Amino acid sequence: MLLSKLVGQRSKDNPADAMIRSHALMVRAGFIKLVANGIWTLGMPAKRIAQKIEKIIREEMDAIDGQECTFPVAMPRELWEESGRYFSIGEEMVRFKDRNNRDMVLGMTHEEAAVHFARDNVVSYQQLPFMIYQIQTKFRDEARPRGGLIRVREFTMKDAYSFHISQEDLETYYQRVYDAYTRIFCRIGMKNVVAVKSDSGMMGGSISHEYMLLTPVGEDTLVLCKQCGYKANMEVAECQPDTVRDSVSQEPEEVFTGDVKEIIEVSRYLNVGAQKTIKAVSYNIKGDTRLVVCFLRGDLEVNEAKLKKAIRKDIVPSNLSDSEKLVAGNIGPLGLKLDDAILVYDASLKEANNMVVGANKANYHIKGIDVQRDLDIKEFYDIAKVPEGARCKFCGAPLGISHGIEVGNIFQLGTKYTKAMGMTVLNKEGASVYPVMGCYGIGVGRAIASVAEERCDDKGLNWPMAIAPWHVYLCPLRMDDADVREKAFNLYDALRAAGTEVLMDDRDASPGCKFSDCDLMGIPIRVVISPRSLSKGEVEIQLRDGSLKTNAKYDACIGVIQDIIKNNM
Amino acid sequence: MLLSKLVGQRSKDNPADAMIRSHALMVRAGFIKLVANGIWTLGMPAKRIAQKIEKIIREEMDAIDGQECTFPVAMPRELWEESGRYFSIGEEMVRFKDRNNRDMVLGMTHEEAAVHFARDNVVSYQQLPFMIYQIQTKFRDEARPRGGLIRVREFTMKDAYSFHISQEDLETYYQRVYDAYTRIFCRIGMKNVVAVKSDSGMMGGSISHEYMLLTPVGEDTLVLCKQCGYKANMEVAECQPDTVRDSVSQEPEEVFTGDVKEIIEVSRYLNVGAQKTIKAVSYNIKGDTRLVVCFLRGDLEVNEAKLKKAIRKDIVPSNLSDSEKLVAGNIGPLGLKLDDAILVYDASLKEANNMVVGANKANYHIKGIDVQRDLDIKEFYDIAKVPEGARCKFCGAPLGISHGIEVGNIFQLGTKYTKAMGMTVLNKEGASVYPVMGCYGIGVGRAIASVAEERCDDKGLNWPMAIAPWHVYLCPLRMDDADVREKAFNLYDALRAAGTEVLMDDRDASPGCKFSDCDLMGIPIRVVISPRSLSKGEVEIQLRDGSLKTNAKYDACIGVIQDIIKNNM
Repeated sequence: MLLSKLVGQRSKDNPADAMIRSHALMVRAGFIKLVANGIWTLGMPAKRIAQKIEKIIREEMDAIDGQECTFPVAMPRELWEESGRYFSIGEEMVRFKDRNNRDMVLGMTHEEAAVHFARDNVVSYQQLPFMIYQIQTKFRDEARPRGGLIRVREFTMKDAYSFHISQEDLETYYQRVYDAYTRIFCRIGMKNVVAVKSDSGMMGGSISHEYMLLTPVGEDTLVLCKQCGYKANMEVAECQPDTVRDSVSQEPEEVFTGDVKEIIEVSRYLNVGAQKTIKAVSYNIKGDTRLVVCFLRGDLEVNEAKLKKAIRKDIVPSNLSDSEKLVAGNIGPLGLKLDDAILVYDASLKEANNMVVGANKANYHIKGIDVQRDLDIKEFYDIAKVPEGARCKFCGAPLGISHGIEVGNIFQLGTKYTKAMGMTVLNKEGASVYPVMGCYGIGVGRAIASVAEERCDDKGLNWPMAIAPWHVYLCPLRMDDADVREKAFNLYDALRAAGTEVLMDDRDASPGCKFSDCDLMGIPIRVVISPRSLSKGEVEIQLRDGSLKTNAKYDACIGVIQDIIKNNM
Repeated sequence: MLLSKLVGQRSKDNPADAMIRSHALMVRAGFIKLVANGIWTLGMPAKRIAQKIEKIIREEMDAIDGQECTFPVAMPRELWEESGRYFSIGEEMVRFKDRNNRDMVLGMTHEEAAVHFARDNVVSYQQLPFMIYQIQTKFRDEARPRGGLIRVREFTMKDAYSFHISQEDLETYYQRVYDAYTRIFCRIGMKNVVAVKSDSGMMGGSISHEYMLLTPVGEDTLVLCKQCGYKANMEVAECQPDTVRDSVSQEPEEVFTGDVKEIIEVSRYLNVGAQKTIKAVSYNIKGDTRLVVCFLRGDLEVNEAKLKKAIRKDIVPSNLSDSEKLVAGNIGPLGLKLDDAILVYDASLKEANNMVVGANKANYHIKGIDVQRDLDIKEFYDIAKVPEGARCKFCGAPLGISHGIEVGNIFQLGTKYTKAMGMTVLNKEGASVYPVMGCYGIGVGRAIASVAEERCDDKGLNWPMAIAPWHVYLCPLRMDDADVREKAFNLYDALRAAGTEVLMDDRDASPGCKFSDCDLMGIPIRVVISPRSLSKGEVEIQLRDGSLKTNAKYDACIGVIQDIIKNNM
């Protein structure tokens, strides 16, 4: 490719809305262009990276017996009614009416389509297991697209669906996918990827893992144990309870706390640690007037994902002042009278004594509460976020908190979809059973952005050889020099004829301009031809990552370049 | 691939709605499954065919300097307002509102997105010409999807857009695309494809060609001259006028015709040829109450595409009885009084004399009309369909009428989009000019269906080697025979290791069932291993198209098979 004809201008200006480096650099390099909020055009370089990632994904999916299909982007409402998700998914799913006034949706995931395709086609256990997948456009109407290709509304995703006669068979296959994913991220060139246990959210099912690229700009929070290797998304992370029970329980005593309401202020006002207070956090059931009031230690935070699981309901933030029966800032578990609120007590309270709680009247709290003695709590739930330094549930070592970008996920779905959509097969004994499903996703655009984020530097992008848009940036200096020009074009043609992917900077531009564009675009190998290098019959070869800088004879440089590509692939 | 695991059951039953063979066979072979009207899931075999076609298209597009991109499926209204098409395109374009109540559309073509991507990125004539393309999902809300993948609502399309400094440069490039398209259809394996001049319809622009696969089931009508090679879509086809002017013009004379209204009845009643009558055909301007009344020879039909071009307005069928001033069945050009109707006279009338016309009153026509003498017509337009046997405009030979499926199209767009969307570049002289555009489309799914339609027979599909889902159908008979089973699996592994694409029918099924599934799926090479063949140390090799039937030594058959693939590619 000749740079002079490549559509996509390089720029020195960071886009105003770019909060992370990869976003700014992908735009500045001319790889992507914003069309609407969360909707991008991929220019040729980004498309080439995407295709290389897709090829790696495809090879690994085919290696675990995947059958590549294409499910529709637009689907009829009826299909999503069968699974129940037409109603359970909110406004992140695009709905529209076709010309005949029929309700349609844009696919954000394809469990329904996969079951629809498989259910009449597969009738016997002998046809199981199988996995069908696609690499295809999806639309998810994200409330807050951000980070360039990290979080978008329209994206290309590999989504795979496996079908099994039993949970055991699913688990065997799940491990194969787990390993295939590890290979994929390794081949793509991502280094700091870990698989963490996750909440399966709207997908249903139980066991699931997210593949997380560890990076400070990641929007997911992860809990990691360096000692035993425990890894989990904060949404489902657990730790050992660390409640310290005082040897002597004091008696309850009402104390005046006046205007002091925030738990951190109460703790300071009464001169007790926040871990000796019980705070109340309230929500509303989604689409309902009922309150959910959570009690947990004052130094902990509610983990809303865990809370939702505990009460099996969706929640929305609540404003306590709306409720006449509650005294905001003074809510406590002792003597709290609410008609139909759901009260949830965190496991951190189970052993606690000498706690400060709200008195359920203005200006007062109560000291000296012993949870077991004073409160009649039937069940405790783990609804708190794991704090940094908490002890690992498995080995007791202090847990660390990291951030990550979710670059892939795998789910054990169970029979949720096959049951809902009436897909059965005959088992060995001739009985009708629902196949057990797994589903497995990787976002292609997010993978591009994640690699970019992990590897970029102050000068620009820096692609691994395996997914670089081109391997070689051929950089003739002084295009007005006839010899340089001729030798450059000859080398360009020879490299292409030898199957090497080369971008030639054929512009009449300064060396500085050419070098900085080469660095910005992140092409792994820079080959410079100049009057000076040619005077020695040579070209200058340099790797973008700084690991190599050498000269090679012009006449022999193709072999040298091809060896470098091979050794860095 | 093992057939026992392939998702997609073979069936003997034609789907009830299948009007053409390829549709029925693709469904019966389990290649595609209907999800909603005009929306399909492609199973693995269809997906593999699609990928091979896409690879051919991609190679040919890259060979003419195409830059592969990805434009969005979902686009904001604003982009389509810039070009004016948000309003000019009707309900075949899907519109929806996103979660923030913004108007969005689903792309059915991507001129707007291409200009949006290019306009800030390209600023100088030195960056021209270039061509950007994508292979991507589109949605067009067809009123009448049909023919399986022939006419669908959701489809994968290669769409390309070129930008040029001048019309001359566009024309040079247009010829390169023209030739690339010819190569593409040839490589895909379509035989009877012709490029015909076409009406560019909603794309704007002037010169355009459609690539038509000639087949009786095609829904496009084509006019072809066998002598000079003239080819055109009926919508724009022209022929020589053939009006025979009688040597003596009679005088006008009103004649009683009673209830006789249809022109063919009038002609019979008065015992004159239909070509000596003038019929009236009326329309309404779309979205308007105004009438359009066309007069043309009684033996000709109105070509609505030509009519729209002539009056530069869109039209809808009209019911004359709605208009009080017109006498349906007796409308004539003589003395017709209409306030604001548009009257259009076909070129076939220019020289005509001794014509029968409606008298504009019930029960009467007028004989003996000489158009030049009796009617005050300022302009004649060519608004008639070319009839079979009409004389070629260029060589005078009789024209033939054929039917075709449009498998691709190329358009010279001019500056319609660059002007509307404000894309300029500086030319050599430093002046701002609008680049001239071309656009070029090929539907991938339609290509699959067209090849299927052209090549299928009573037994099933019949794929050309170049796009076959697998090259070899390995067909062991008697899977219960240990030797057959072992040798079959060994050959299966060896073929795959040698890079040969093989589908193995590993089912316990009868030879008849296996052979008919092989024929139905249309895999080019059938390799049979049976106790009988193995007793001679052989396998039986047979081509789906009947051109070869041979035996080969089991131990040497891979080379034989690979030669057959190479020779048929």
